[in-house]
Amino acid sequence: MRFSIDQAAFLNGVQTVQRAISTKNVLPPILSGIYLEAGDGKLILRATDLEIGIESVLPATVSGEGAVVLPARYFTEIVRKLPAMEITVEEADNGQVRISYGKSEILLNAYDADEFPALQDFRDDVSFEISQSRLTSAIRNVSIAASVDYSRPIFTGILLEMVDGKLLKMVATDTHRLAYCEVQVDAATVEDSLSLIVPSRSLNELGRIFSPEEEAMVRIVVDENKILFETENIRITSRLIEGKFVNYRQVIPESWNTRVRMLRKPFYDALDRASLLSRDDLSKKKLNTVKMVIDEGAMEISSKSAQIGELEEKVPVHLEGERLEIGFNSRYLLDVLRVMDQEEIVLDLTSPLSPGIIRPLEENNNTLFLVLPIRLG
Amino acid sequence: MRFSIDQAAFLNGVQTVQRAISTKNVLPPILSGIYLEAGDGKLILRATDLEIGIESVLPATVSGEGAVVLPARYFTEIVRKLPAMEITVEEADNGQVRISYGKSEILLNAYDADEFPALQDFRDDVSFEISQSRLTSAIRNVSIAASVDYSRPIFTGILLEMVDGKLLKMVATDTHRLAYCEVQVDAATVEDSLSLIVPSRSLNELGRIFSPEEEAMVRIVVDENKILFETENIRITSRLIEGKFVNYRQVIPESWNTRVRMLRKPFYDALDRASLLSRDDLSKKKLNTVKMVIDEGAMEISSKSAQIGELEEKVPVHLEGERLEIGFNSRYLLDVLRVMDQEEIVLDLTSPLSPGIIRPLEENNNTLFLVLPIRLG
Repeated sequence: MRFSIDQAAFLNGVQTVQRAISTKNVLPPILSGIYLEAGDGKLILRATDLEIGIESVLPATVSGEGAVVLPARYFTEIVRKLPAMEITVEEADNGQVRISYGKSEILLNAYDADEFPALQDFRDDVSFEISQSRLTSAIRNVSIAASVDYSRPIFTGILLEMVDGKLLKMVATDTHRLAYCEVQVDAATVEDSLSLIVPSRSLNELGRIFSPEEEAMVRIVVDENKILFETENIRITSRLIEGKFVNYRQVIPESWNTRVRMLRKPFYDALDRASLLSRDDLSKKKLNTVKMVIDEGAMEISSKSAQIGELEEKVPVHLEGERLEIGFNSRYLLDVLRVMDQEEIVLDLTSPLSPGIIRPLEENNNTLFLVLPIRLG
Repeated sequence: MRFSIDQAAFLNGVQTVQRAISTKNVLPPILSGIYLEAGDGKLILRATDLEIGIESVLPATVSGEGAVVLPARYFTEIVRKLPAMEITVEEADNGQVRISYGKSEILLNAYDADEFPALQDFRDDVSFEISQSRLTSAIRNVSIAASVDYSRPIFTGILLEMVDGKLLKMVATDTHRLAYCEVQVDAATVEDSLSLIVPSRSLNELGRIFSPEEEAMVRIVVDENKILFETENIRITSRLIEGKFVNYRQVIPESWNTRVRMLRKPFYDALDRASLLSRDDLSKKKLNTVKMVIDEGAMEISSKSAQIGELEEKVPVHLEGERLEIGFNSRYLLDVLRVMDQEEIVLDLTSPLSPGIIRPLEENNNTLFLVLPIRLG
């Protein structure tokens, strides 16, 4: 194997696939490596932790076909520090790989490429397309509500639910909060319903690899217990999570008694300050509790820590319906407000013990966040 | 006590003095606080860990004189997150302090200001001046060689040695390397020699507070076992380290057999890559070892790790004198090259077991770094 490639493009490809490398050491050693295959004027880079697999295809000057596997951690660091020039990579003796640049060279101990798992095959009976920008934006919104507690796998996943081949609903919940987002779908080969759960970690990595500014399409293929996301140069595969997702429709209230309209930024800033004085409460139940007193024209946000002191903020709001006192975990609200990019938002409430719903003011934006309140002492 | 001040100026002052707060919890609780004193149209902020003391004086609208002490950690975070507007701070009931901004307010539990240690008095018989830019640049260079091993306090300090009231020599060494810098002095009240050791931590904080772009003078006052650095708005005091500094002159070789002239950047980059393959050697003696083979026109830098692989770089050099093979700890060389800002440097060597001297090519720059070599296996 022998190929030459520009350092910047090489680094980009290596950093892309390196996201699939597990930070845990429980996998076979070969999976701590990046697979490189040269041939037909291109370089294929590949990495997997058996849950997620990432492949990046780069144009390269290939003067010898073949494949090698290099230790991801060192290899990525080395490529990052190589000079910005043409880099040549080739097989050397004793199972080593030579990386040469200018008059300098590095010999790296390689793994046996035959041991690297082959790419998964996908039957593409079930497929659809979503633009990169829409997909990454939906993932950014929905993934905040996914759980990181792997003892209950369902909640660490994101539900992808397609109704009529035109609309994909994405939902995540950790049982304390829920995020919901609808995305326009193109070129679907399925017209009936589709419902699957993708690990949020896989979608998070995908969200970091694909560009929110890119309108080009991502083709999504579903085959039994696995899913494939592919663009011209990148293929991301993920296993699916088995099981039944919670009935999220049941949780979302259909009406409200208190509707608060306000600017996102002042609300965020006030909560951010309030969270400083709500953290040190050692009773875990009340962790990060902020109290909100919603009245005509203004919402009072307060927090208190016996150790540090107390805070009272006033945020201008427009109130429809009833006045209300309610408590929330400030972290959950901040997570929501951080991923929203709209200037104006709406908070719908029913009672001090019913979930609050946050959405953008603009009606057409099909995004919704649900946060359970905290009972005030 | 009651004063009003712009948030940005307030934050700047708070962040400045907060550098003196110890991260260890061994000091009396009051020292985890920032002292605020309002009066005479100004706000004085002060913090100390008894080794270093920092005071910042800010113009403020004072409508009530007095002093309070607020917990540094929370207070700094709060001021950072306050809106960019006028902030009012005043004493409230129950030993609390009210911070108000717009229609919002925070009540913080305060310490008793009387318990805060008073500012140290300084007799200013012995004083001199150095420009901020020269002082911070010298600290930046010299401090890299200071030790962080507090079991041998002398080596954690930086020697300040004045010869004739005109030139200040600054030296630090951890016994493996040494940094030396000469700084022009103004307005000295001493004509005889002066020799004292300042904790490098104190000078590092000073280097972060004073600006490398500021030509204004820092007045330095020495009084028995303590030192004061003051500008118009900032006073930094530090205790001195007692004891006798090593005779650094004895260590610096007076001649060379091999003089290498080269560009700093390519040398740095090559060492940076070489260090990637020199880290995993478990024998501590050889940690970070790079080998340098110096020859006419080029220096070969190589490193090797049984686990990862090996590297060979070629850096173009201009050689005067003898060819030489020598080993160094790449981290020590990288530390030196990182703080130098000259494009061209000189490396003087005598033998494979004698210290190497790195300095800027320009003769007038009175900076010198010494690094002990590593015996090659």
